[in-house]
Amino acid sequence: MRFARVAVIGVGLIGGSFALALKRARLARHIVGAGRSRANLKRALDLRAIDSIAASPAAAARDADLIFIATPVSHFEKIFREIKASMKPSAIVTDGGSTKRDVVAAARKGLGAKVVQFIPAHPIAGAEKSGVIAAHPGLFENRNVVVTPLKANDPEKVRTLERTWRRLKAKVSRMSPAEHDAVFAAVSHLPHLLAYGLVSDIAGRRNSRQLFGYAAGGFRDFTRIASSHPEMWRDICMANRGPLLRELVRFSKKMLQIGRQLQKREAKALERTFLQARSARDRWLKGLA
Amino acid sequence: MRFARVAVIGVGLIGGSFALALKRARLARHIVGAGRSRANLKRALDLRAIDSIAASPAAAARDADLIFIATPVSHFEKIFREIKASMKPSAIVTDGGSTKRDVVAAARKGLGAKVVQFIPAHPIAGAEKSGVIAAHPGLFENRNVVVTPLKANDPEKVRTLERTWRRLKAKVSRMSPAEHDAVFAAVSHLPHLLAYGLVSDIAGRRNSRQLFGYAAGGFRDFTRIASSHPEMWRDICMANRGPLLRELVRFSKKMLQIGRQLQKREAKALERTFLQARSARDRWLKGLA
Repeated sequence: MRFARVAVIGVGLIGGSFALALKRARLARHIVGAGRSRANLKRALDLRAIDSIAASPAAAARDADLIFIATPVSHFEKIFREIKASMKPSAIVTDGGSTKRDVVAAARKGLGAKVVQFIPAHPIAGAEKSGVIAAHPGLFENRNVVVTPLKANDPEKVRTLERTWRRLKAKVSRMSPAEHDAVFAAVSHLPHLLAYGLVSDIAGRRNSRQLFGYAAGGFRDFTRIASSHPEMWRDICMANRGPLLRELVRFSKKMLQIGRQLQKREAKALERTFLQARSARDRWLKGLA
Repeated sequence: MRFARVAVIGVGLIGGSFALALKRARLARHIVGAGRSRANLKRALDLRAIDSIAASPAAAARDADLIFIATPVSHFEKIFREIKASMKPSAIVTDGGSTKRDVVAAARKGLGAKVVQFIPAHPIAGAEKSGVIAAHPGLFENRNVVVTPLKANDPEKVRTLERTWRRLKAKVSRMSPAEHDAVFAAVSHLPHLLAYGLVSDIAGRRNSRQLFGYAAGGFRDFTRIASSHPEMWRDICMANRGPLLRELVRFSKKMLQIGRQLQKREAKALERTFLQARSARDRWLKGLA
């Protein structure tokens, strides 16, 4: 299952960590990197995440057995177009994008009939830091990697990709692209939107200095994800607009219900909601430990 | 400024830490504790947070120069009624409650004319753990303590209380009770309500196991405050119902605006909101460091 040649397009936190992890597991003989920032690629070379630098995605893809795309999702369609001609027919193309239906659409447009070679995937790994400088080979250990295969994919290739992720110690599961996007709209994209919304609202007030002056540890943790990368999250939210809007409507209804309980002084109903939340969260944390 | 006798009513995390901090700063000769749980009071005695146990709030208050009430806020009115008769005319009565208008109302009802002796205050210190077992003398170091004096308070007594908190290394500021409640509705109570609401909503779904299965670090931090004490937060939310509802309405409008930007594919407007939030949060964190 060792890959003779792997191409990593976008050697940042995710791409760089994938390269380092493959090397540590001895799953790649040669890794070639491509990307927009020459300085970042040189750093990747210095860190031995990659063995060589390609001048373009097309050049990186040539002769590669595995092609991993880990740039911002908004660049995917262009990259697919660029690599289409040089891809080997036996190559597995996969990605690390946070949304999946849009990535599949981009692959259909950019790769045409070669979309059968593309197996979409999403490694769930922290994105507070960025660039290859933050990469490390253990990033995916014990983390979820969701593979969302296309019907047209070769089942054997899908299994090869899944085995590869398992060798990097990730927990691999399968979903459809639509199911993936619905799940992450609820547990990741909506919380980001709410945290951004709350901080932006407070920042825009006349007494924002006073308000921030009394914000404490609870506020700090609640809003940590509001320090996430604005462009990246703009792209994720736009790409997953439909499911995210459905989650936002659902949450607004929930908060309206809680607001009514407050207004009607229904203390017991309010406490039941709080209790349900606390026990569910505590059960979840126990399951993680 | 040393107090000959201090009464702490409710010797939990806040009351116990206040007692330990007073002792470390040599600001109290004798500290007497009162509370509902005999076992907790004995532990407080073992930990030398208090020097003796009183059979009742009234007994604790007798001869005390400083009376600190740190029970759940819903018990305050009853405690005020109980200590009213035994309070020395020179005693300062103060508290550690998270809401202030309701505490002032309880003091007016329970203390009658003696309400002039009551100086409301709110030390902003973590409440994830509880009981005297979690108390420590450094809990208030570099933390905000908001004093919300009444017009009827003796200004000299207010200054004495503020000096006491400063000797415990707290950052002391003054507000009116209404201003206090508005500020904390925004930066503390609303985030708690949102976190409880989100977790409760996810917990109530048919696929909640699947959803929690893919929740990661961002979700964990965003929802940390949903593991807060349900009864305590029920009381805080009920007590601060008006300002909290106003914050909820305000936030809902903000999220409606963000939802419209999403729906209309206004990517730039969305990114501006995210950027504003991130820079405001980063400025705030820098100010804290």
